[in-house]
Amino acid sequence: MEKKTKILNDPVYGFVSIPYGILFDLVEHPYFQRLRNIKQVSLTHYVYPGALHTRFHHALGALHLMQQAVSSLRAKGVAISEEEAEAVMIAILLHDIGHGPFSHTLEHTLISVNHEALSLLFMERLNEAFRGRLSLAIEVFTGRYPKPYLHQLVSGQLDMDRLDYLNRDSYFTGVAEGVIGYDRIIKMLNVVDGRLVVEQKGIYSVERFLTSRRIMYWQVYLHKTVVAAEQMLRLTLRRARELAMRGQTPWAPPALEYFLNHSVGATEFHERRNELLDCFAALDDTDVSAAVKTWQRHPDALLSYLSYGLINRRLFRLEFSNDPFDPDYVAGIRQAIHDSSKLPAHAGDHLIIQGQETNSAYTLTKEEIMVCTKEGSVVPMSSISDFGIAPRSFTKYFLCYPKEVAS
Amino acid sequence: MEKKTKILNDPVYGFVSIPYGILFDLVEHPYFQRLRNIKQVSLTHYVYPGALHTRFHHALGALHLMQQAVSSLRAKGVAISEEEAEAVMIAILLHDIGHGPFSHTLEHTLISVNHEALSLLFMERLNEAFRGRLSLAIEVFTGRYPKPYLHQLVSGQLDMDRLDYLNRDSYFTGVAEGVIGYDRIIKMLNVVDGRLVVEQKGIYSVERFLTSRRIMYWQVYLHKTVVAAEQMLRLTLRRARELAMRGQTPWAPPALEYFLNHSVGATEFHERRNELLDCFAALDDTDVSAAVKTWQRHPDALLSYLSYGLINRRLFRLEFSNDPFDPDYVAGIRQAIHDSSKLPAHAGDHLIIQGQETNSAYTLTKEEIMVCTKEGSVVPMSSISDFGIAPRSFTKYFLCYPKEVAS
Amino acid sequence: MEKKTKILNDPVYGFVSIPYGILFDLVEHPYFQRLRNIKQVSLTHYVYPGALHTRFHHALGALHLMQQAVSSLRAKGVAISEEEAEAVMIAILLHDIGHGPFSHTLEHTLISVNHEALSLLFMERLNEAFRGRLSLAIEVFTGRYPKPYLHQLVSGQLDMDRLDYLNRDSYFTGVAEGVIGYDRIIKMLNVVDGRLVVEQKGIYSVERFLTSRRIMYWQVYLHKTVVAAEQMLRLTLRRARELAMRGQTPWAPPALEYFLNHSVGATEFHERRNELLDCFAALDDTDVSAAVKTWQRHPDALLSYLSYGLINRRLFRLEFSNDPFDPDYVAGIRQAIHDSSKLPAHAGDHLIIQGQETNSAYTLTKEEIMVCTKEGSVVPMSSISDFGIAPRSFTKYFLCYPKEVAS
Amino acid sequence: MEKKTKILNDPVYGFVSIPYGILFDLVEHPYFQRLRNIKQVSLTHYVYPGALHTRFHHALGALHLMQQAVSSLRAKGVAISEEEAEAVMIAILLHDIGHGPFSHTLEHTLISVNHEALSLLFMERLNEAFRGRLSLAIEVFTGRYPKPYLHQLVSGQLDMDRLDYLNRDSYFTGVAEGVIGYDRIIKMLNVVDGRLVVEQKGIYSVERFLTSRRIMYWQVYLHKTVVAAEQMLRLTLRRARELAMRGQTPWAPPALEYFLNHSVGATEFHERRNELLDCFAALDDTDVSAAVKTWQRHPDALLSYLSYGLINRRLFRLEFSNDPFDPDYVAGIRQAIHDSSKLPAHAGDHLIIQGQETNSAYTLTKEEIMVCTKEGSVVPMSSISDFGIAPRSFTKYFLCYPKEVAS
Repeated sequence: MEKKTKILNDPVYGFVSIPYGILFDLVEHPYFQRLRNIKQVSLTHYVYPGALHTRFHHALGALHLMQQAVSSLRAKGVAISEEEAEAVMIAILLHDIGHGPFSHTLEHTLISVNHEALSLLFMERLNEAFRGRLSLAIEVFTGRYPKPYLHQLVSGQLDMDRLDYLNRDSYFTGVAEGVIGYDRIIKMLNVVDGRLVVEQKGIYSVERFLTSRRIMYWQVYLHKTVVAAEQMLRLTLRRARELAMRGQTPWAPPALEYFLNHSVGATEFHERRNELLDCFAALDDTDVSAAVKTWQRHPDALLSYLSYGLINRRLFRLEFSNDPFDPDYVAGIRQAIHDSSKLPAHAGDHLIIQGQETNSAYTLTKEEIMVCTKEGSVVPMSSISDFGIAPRSFTKYFLCYPKEVAS
Repeated sequence: MEKKTKILNDPVYGFVSIPYGILFDLVEHPYFQRLRNIKQVSLTHYVYPGALHTRFHHALGALHLMQQAVSSLRAKGVAISEEEAEAVMIAILLHDIGHGPFSHTLEHTLISVNHEALSLLFMERLNEAFRGRLSLAIEVFTGRYPKPYLHQLVSGQLDMDRLDYLNRDSYFTGVAEGVIGYDRIIKMLNVVDGRLVVEQKGIYSVERFLTSRRIMYWQVYLHKTVVAAEQMLRLTLRRARELAMRGQTPWAPPALEYFLNHSVGATEFHERRNELLDCFAALDDTDVSAAVKTWQRHPDALLSYLSYGLINRRLFRLEFSNDPFDPDYVAGIRQAIHDSSKLPAHAGDHLIIQGQETNSAYTLTKEEIMVCTKEGSVVPMSSISDFGIAPRSFTKYFLCYPKEVAS
Repeated sequence: MEKKTKILNDPVYGFVSIPYGILFDLVEHPYFQRLRNIKQVSLTHYVYPGALHTRFHHALGALHLMQQAVSSLRAKGVAISEEEAEAVMIAILLHDIGHGPFSHTLEHTLISVNHEALSLLFMERLNEAFRGRLSLAIEVFTGRYPKPYLHQLVSGQLDMDRLDYLNRDSYFTGVAEGVIGYDRIIKMLNVVDGRLVVEQKGIYSVERFLTSRRIMYWQVYLHKTVVAAEQMLRLTLRRARELAMRGQTPWAPPALEYFLNHSVGATEFHERRNELLDCFAALDDTDVSAAVKTWQRHPDALLSYLSYGLINRRLFRLEFSNDPFDPDYVAGIRQAIHDSSKLPAHAGDHLIIQGQETNSAYTLTKEEIMVCTKEGSVVPMSSISDFGIAPRSFTKYFLCYPKEVAS
Repeated sequence: MEKKTKILNDPVYGFVSIPYGILFDLVEHPYFQRLRNIKQVSLTHYVYPGALHTRFHHALGALHLMQQAVSSLRAKGVAISEEEAEAVMIAILLHDIGHGPFSHTLEHTLISVNHEALSLLFMERLNEAFRGRLSLAIEVFTGRYPKPYLHQLVSGQLDMDRLDYLNRDSYFTGVAEGVIGYDRIIKMLNVVDGRLVVEQKGIYSVERFLTSRRIMYWQVYLHKTVVAAEQMLRLTLRRARELAMRGQTPWAPPALEYFLNHSVGATEFHERRNELLDCFAALDDTDVSAAVKTWQRHPDALLSYLSYGLINRRLFRLEFSNDPFDPDYVAGIRQAIHDSSKLPAHAGDHLIIQGQETNSAYTLTKEEIMVCTKEGSVVPMSSISDFGIAPRSFTKYFLCYPKEVAS
């Protein structure tokens, strides 16, 4: 008998289904419903106005792909028990549950714990609420389960997370070149010696997946305007916290006010996990947006300057460079900021940001893609593909500062 | 020489362009940027999680279609001057600028002025700011300009508003059957005696447009769960205002707090237009969302009950009927609400809503579609099409109440 | 255990599968492979160059949809045995196997038996070859099986034949407005009292299907140029047969030569079924194309005139009219043909064609669509839909003649 | 004033237009109309049943892209005169006019002149007919015109030929991964020092184009079954010519019969160009198909064996190998063919084919793609892309023989 499922329209796949049972109950849980208000790609909508899709939608989409992957692997004779299937589906459903407002953008700004660690804390808490039914999922998520391929389906070079977000981000931005043949890639996956491999005839699809990802990095995720807006949002929140530290907390919805007034890190979560998780779970994009909008009229010149710019899309300029910027060049801009009468006084150090972006963080800290050849041996993809997927990282330096001083 | 334009990705059309000049300046204006935070289809995302697109995106899409319509009509010999083209484009760009948070849902709940009247007030204010350059657009928008077809392109049976929103809502909900052949419809438009007509060979496309719209009404806009959620949001805001009237205004972001504490209608806008427009322009979806989230823990049992339900998707049940509901049936539910221990006490009258939805409001208060036959005469479409487009309205009654008392 | 299937790429659906067993064996049979060379929409490619798809592809697509329909009905509790499922799939696979070269165009020109009768003859012959395994399929195909809905899935208002050909013809012509939501329509089908019904919430999809079909009729199937080309092809073949009857058979591939030289009708098929089926099965589009190309240089002025026109796309003019043509107008054109020095002499009667096209032949000789309401009653769709689907036919008269005499 | 154009539906692009004037006249010419009966991808439809599209459609699609390329380059300030624009459009329209039946498959089998040489002969003949109006186009086509980029648009790494056929073959086969972002690639083209370059921000799109092409090669163009069918068709035609050389010409339509009976090569075309071009122009896929179908019953055992296999899809087995096949292995198969009672006697040497396929022929005999960097220098793409596009070729060996002897 076919399991009962809840069906949802998903423009990316037509329909997705959520099996009734623990998966459906997790989706209904307030911790998960919260993701409805956390945009998948932060401020990307400043450049691509359609990119308002959420972590909620992404998690359901990744669950959908995981169902296909499990079914395809089983059809190839990979033995996956019902418990393991449920575990890997729970793991992918909850892999991003630790994301806070604006996803990556405010990671480390509001609290000093990364989202993977928070996802794990949420899962552990939910495991208590669901009386241990997430234990196996947690083992899979953390890579401690003795079938590594299950973890790789959740977090690896060809995991369901990536397959979903590339297609989804492509759909909602309208950058058609990001579309990937996820169904064919899933059909090409197999397991050898407990690890995920791609069948050789699938390497062209994988090459295409890799080129699509590169296109999305440079056209979307690292788009100059997007990065500039995200940097401004970080500056804004940091300034609000500075004021709070001085006892001048600017107005904010209660959920946000808490994190402006308190420093929260791993230690605090260790000591007061449940309380802090509930505080954090109360927070989403709308709190930050409502606050920033209000801060436009805050007496602190820096806070209101940044907030006004964000709300009305008067964004900083951003330059990319393959090499670190010349210190003299940076000093010149810093001086111009200092001298400008249009900018808040004494704000120089806050209004120029140097940093670097690398796509390795996303792509190559993880192990290489392994290919199962027609003859049955397993080799790294770089050894048989012309495509440059050698595990090196690619870094670009950036400099970000107000347009008012741009030459 | 081609006019310079700003190009944006729009997943619905590939690309849309905004001509530099007054149109670009209007897009940059804070009044317009505000639409970035007003969802086109309110709470529809509870059912269709992708439906997070905004009035901002819709207005740009409608502008895109207007550019095509003007160009197509000109190619057929319809004389449209540069000034008229600019006016009709401004009119379509700003046609929805008066929408408040959650578009239609909270119309008449927060303030007692409808969005068309507000759009006009915003246009008049912007006309002052832009020193009269919107005068012609306002004439077109209000139907006072002596070329009626220009008004019909903005607001009529086949206006660019509808052509855009059907395609856009279809794209973001994933209800593929809502897709229409907007390009062919635009190519089939013409002008006879100053009024918009469809060429006869285009009537099949128009029939298809009408069926698509019906599908969208029943599958999306009037989806039971969507209507139930919207009714709950109205109840929630009304309760907040009741509390405010008693001097117990619940916490809210400042922009929203103002409208909880003040009754604002046509008279007030007449007396203090600019001030009130700025207040209203400060308000968007995020204020309401942040407030409702906070109200989950408000001491008023009714406010917190409704807010919790909205945030965590515990939505009311909704029944549709072709006939008014039997008063005895309604009384029975009212009693059950009164008796239920799970529901806030003394809230009976607030927790049951009767109402009616009609698609005539959207479709048939406007004049009929006129067709230009191959022989050159102009006749109403209903006289030559088998398709039932007679200008009658279609009404459904609904009853909405907590699931806790649903049998 | 899932049945083994042969998978094929079908651009319309992504993939289609053919179950191994009798269905696969029938596909492999030369009678079925022959359909690879019979275009689905005859000479439509003169107007829509992509429309080269074949009856072979259509039959596989319709089989694909039938698999979905059977599976959907079973999920709703309709008891369909394995034997019945196989029968209805065989019936849809072979429903068009009797089509000759250029499908409908040359029906009744080369032989005087219609394609449905021929399909049945082919099935009966195959039933002998497959030792009775098609008996049930034949009962379904001919409507004699006591579950009428099975026949309706093969031949009815919402049969899998139509669902496939509308989508397929739309895909290959590029007339995007012909696309229908076949998956939703199939999901909305059900069986009440042994007959096929549509669930009420599906009527908007059916309305859309009907508008799509109308669009395809007027934009594709009855496109003036397409009808003109088809009329010319008929004239050409008739002329070739006239010459053959006089003992002057023009050159033709052997398979075609046979049918130029012999009059074959129901009587002959009754007497020599197997022999004639093999003769007919040897014939396809390529024979006719190769012959017409050669006839360009035939000494008979009429045959070469028509053949040259067809090969080099010098097509007749076609006029449509809602009323029969004025005899005086027709006589005038006839005279002009007679007087023209550019046209073959003595060919007047051959070069002007009057006729009529009606879409009722395709749509409304069959019974009405029945709808199962939410309350459970079954009513004709016309009683609850605004859409004009009353079972009336729609006829247009046409007149077709050489462009050389067109005013 | 916009030039008048003929509009055609093209499912790949929506619409394509042909400017009236010489381009339209060339399309109407019988030499060009002939391409309606020459399939773009030969026997690929044996595997992908939708792949019946023709050289006619491809040529119009490539013309469509050329219009976009010219318009985009002009907008960037590249001076292209009206005469040059017309020339490059004529050149792309006619670039494949020399293809004979089944395109590449029978090249060198029916006549010993390649299709590029024949295209040039056709152009020269048409140049006479059009009184010199193709002279510039011929210079562009042959690369003698002093603006090399015009030639590169017709025949180069990123020419309009490839951009069209990848998208078109992808559309009609249904291999979705072959789709490329042709519009973005065209927008990224520019001219530096008279040669075509890609702007740096376009290299990700070019990488994607290259991966799409690889996918199409291995999944479509070099699909085992497709190559096997094409080899069989070659064998069949060669056998027919052998019989003809012995004075036993098998039945064939006149256009084909000529080329079975006569050896035609460069010398003959030199001596009797116009006559032979007309003979060749009379020939298309339908002649070969009609002949092969008839040959199924030819007394020559080898000819009928091969023909029967082709018509009824009983195709040879094909093995690919990275290395040349072991002579002993080949000898074993040869012996098995000799011993088989199911195969025609004395046919051993005809029934086993060794060969090699390389995608270099298509991709890398041409010069490398050049990139214009943000700094303005022009460098080979391989120097700045991780993608393996070094100009090396890739060869696979194949062995093809009857399934009857396959182990």
